[in-house]
Amino acid sequence: MNAEVITIGNEILSGRIVDSNSAFIGARLSGIGIPLAWITSVGDDRDRIAQAFEQAMARADVVLVTGGLGPTHDDMTKHVFAELFGRKLVLNEEVLERVRERFAHRGIEMPSSNVDQAMVPEGVEALENQWGTAPGLHLEEAGKHVFLLPGVPREMKGLLEQCVLPILERAGFGRPILQHTLRTTGISESALYERLRNLPDMACLAFLPGLTGVDLHITVQGDEETAVRGQIETMAAEIRERVGEFLYGEGDQTIEAVVGEMLMAKSWRMAVAESCTGGLIASRITDVPGSSNYFERGIVAYSNRAKVALLGVPEDLIAAQGAVSAPVAEAMAEGVRVRSNVDISLSVTGIAGPAGGTEEKPVGLVFMGVSTAEKTFSKKFQFGNERWVNKQRTAQAGLDLVRRALVEPAAQGGGI
Amino acid sequence: MNAEVITIGNEILSGRIVDSNSAFIGARLSGIGIPLAWITSVGDDRDRIAQAFEQAMARADVVLVTGGLGPTHDDMTKHVFAELFGRKLVLNEEVLERVRERFAHRGIEMPSSNVDQAMVPEGVEALENQWGTAPGLHLEEAGKHVFLLPGVPREMKGLLEQCVLPILERAGFGRPILQHTLRTTGISESALYERLRNLPDMACLAFLPGLTGVDLHITVQGDEETAVRGQIETMAAEIRERVGEFLYGEGDQTIEAVVGEMLMAKSWRMAVAESCTGGLIASRITDVPGSSNYFERGIVAYSNRAKVALLGVPEDLIAAQGAVSAPVAEAMAEGVRVRSNVDISLSVTGIAGPAGGTEEKPVGLVFMGVSTAEKTFSKKFQFGNERWVNKQRTAQAGLDLVRRALVEPAAQGGGI
Repeated sequence: MNAEVITIGNEILSGRIVDSNSAFIGARLSGIGIPLAWITSVGDDRDRIAQAFEQAMARADVVLVTGGLGPTHDDMTKHVFAELFGRKLVLNEEVLERVRERFAHRGIEMPSSNVDQAMVPEGVEALENQWGTAPGLHLEEAGKHVFLLPGVPREMKGLLEQCVLPILERAGFGRPILQHTLRTTGISESALYERLRNLPDMACLAFLPGLTGVDLHITVQGDEETAVRGQIETMAAEIRERVGEFLYGEGDQTIEAVVGEMLMAKSWRMAVAESCTGGLIASRITDVPGSSNYFERGIVAYSNRAKVALLGVPEDLIAAQGAVSAPVAEAMAEGVRVRSNVDISLSVTGIAGPAGGTEEKPVGLVFMGVSTAEKTFSKKFQFGNERWVNKQRTAQAGLDLVRRALVEPAAQGGGI
Repeated sequence: MNAEVITIGNEILSGRIVDSNSAFIGARLSGIGIPLAWITSVGDDRDRIAQAFEQAMARADVVLVTGGLGPTHDDMTKHVFAELFGRKLVLNEEVLERVRERFAHRGIEMPSSNVDQAMVPEGVEALENQWGTAPGLHLEEAGKHVFLLPGVPREMKGLLEQCVLPILERAGFGRPILQHTLRTTGISESALYERLRNLPDMACLAFLPGLTGVDLHITVQGDEETAVRGQIETMAAEIRERVGEFLYGEGDQTIEAVVGEMLMAKSWRMAVAESCTGGLIASRITDVPGSSNYFERGIVAYSNRAKVALLGVPEDLIAAQGAVSAPVAEAMAEGVRVRSNVDISLSVTGIAGPAGGTEEKPVGLVFMGVSTAEKTFSKKFQFGNERWVNKQRTAQAGLDLVRRALVEPAAQGGGI
């Protein structure tokens, strides 16, 4: 049992728009236990659309086509479909009436090109589109289901959820699939793999590296939901054990949200002092709704003058050690914490690049400091050569330093 | 002459991630006159990957595969490829040395699973990946070109631009297609359309609305490059005339880069004081290489206490007008400019949401201030209900206020 999606439209092939419909359909089909096996995208080209149809019918049980159902010259999905399945197009009065009503409701006369949208291949079910003028179409043949849906995401989503999924569920397709994500940071994909490679059920696990770290994605399909859920939980527990302190969140949790929850739990307030990240860390912290409950302020001390004036970093310390150094990171962290009267602070100073590096202090060198009433410490990092990437990686690593500092010592798997 | 992209990865089929690589590749191939005809996505499944390879080789002249080149068990692209083309995998010492160096640079020992990344099919060219550990691979056979690229977008993009496109251009593929983008902000798509609808060659123009405004994208293909270039330039000149002050940049220019250039030209320095954008504006300004030449500091005054202490906003002004008000925006702008001794400043105060709105001051209400030695003024904006979107739109509108304030009055098309 598997499914194929075909998306149709020149704008997808030319890269003018990103095809987000396929991912939406893939996620929703997974949710009812029908794995998507293929996605094919072609332009508004009769032969290629026909070839894509034939391919899909040969290898999938469920075929969902999006796009090419509009009223203009380059919308040809329905026509190719009708030819291929040998079905005449006939006027569907009910659909025509609905389209006419839509226009009337907006006080506009229906353009004649819309009559074509009410032409439905013989023996095909028209699915009511409450979000636009083109109906969805559904054909069941030899145990296979074919759906034609509009390409406009809102219309596609509406039809998928209100018509397509219920039809497939009634047809008794699908076995439960459940998914769970564990999010790690500060450890490379290959080092994680070393820790996890001999897990049983390794086939259920995907490694997804990104700028925030490596996400571990578990997918299990089975016959019975409770058993599937149990299998996922067993695997997640084993991974938690092996990954230890590098695990910062689960599901969709971001590290800024995790840090926010930890601060709320302690009733602590926080401030940041940034140089090379230029405000990115403060911006990420304030992406979280309700962050004003624990985020007091951020200082983007881009110049040395600002570091001295706003954070009280001694001028001679900068002269002696350089702005990018452990002592300056610590002075920045302590300065912002004391001056803003908060419980914990984070500081960052580094060379984002592309210019400004030296042999001794290359591009990508970053020092970060954390300060609480109890202690102030700093950590050195060496990132790469790309400015934007360095900012992203530094922000994630900085938030992770704070997370680790907030973990109760007894609960902490490893050291920093 | 056409191309096919194959993207590989379970996470695409399950809808966990949207495949944005294909759109990027489609746009870049278009740019050198090679139309993308097919996009196929399959999961990490040996048989399906092989089938997708065979399909593509049968119908396309250029085949680009992304994904499945990592060091873990589910990365099988290279192995399927080697089998299909009957080529043994051999250790490429040069690639191994590069991977080893990458780890050494970051002070980490290379995990042994990375050795697999240096295994290259015989007779296949390894393309240097400066952004990660998996090299790109290139095979030319019977006039067809096959490229295997990593799925991580940053690595894929780097390899595409630095290796793949030059190889295809040298191979003499394609008919000239040229593209040019004009970037606007502060005007709706439909208002722009009213200004442009009766342009000749309207078919060459695409409207691409996004969070930074509406980009106008011109695409022309022809037989002769000079003529194509001339056609684009004529159209661009007409658009510039009609769009006027809403046009902030061309090509890939961001508004933060444009503002940076204007500041450099005047030898001016800048500071920002942010509340609801939480550091996003400072972060965008410092995304520009060399921004330390003109960016002095940013204050993320999230609490009222910080607005008073760091910007000198009078406490009774906040009490009387509320923190989200025109007078407070102006006091913030003037405060940060005077205290940091810069030439121009921008301030933002607003309600990002989802909570914190009232009938009088709803979510999405934002006041921004600009201050120079000559004058201080503010402007009111009403955005929507989504926190993250409000932050993005506010940052863009704020940078546009600064851009407009920096334009010499004589050169400015309209008023603010």
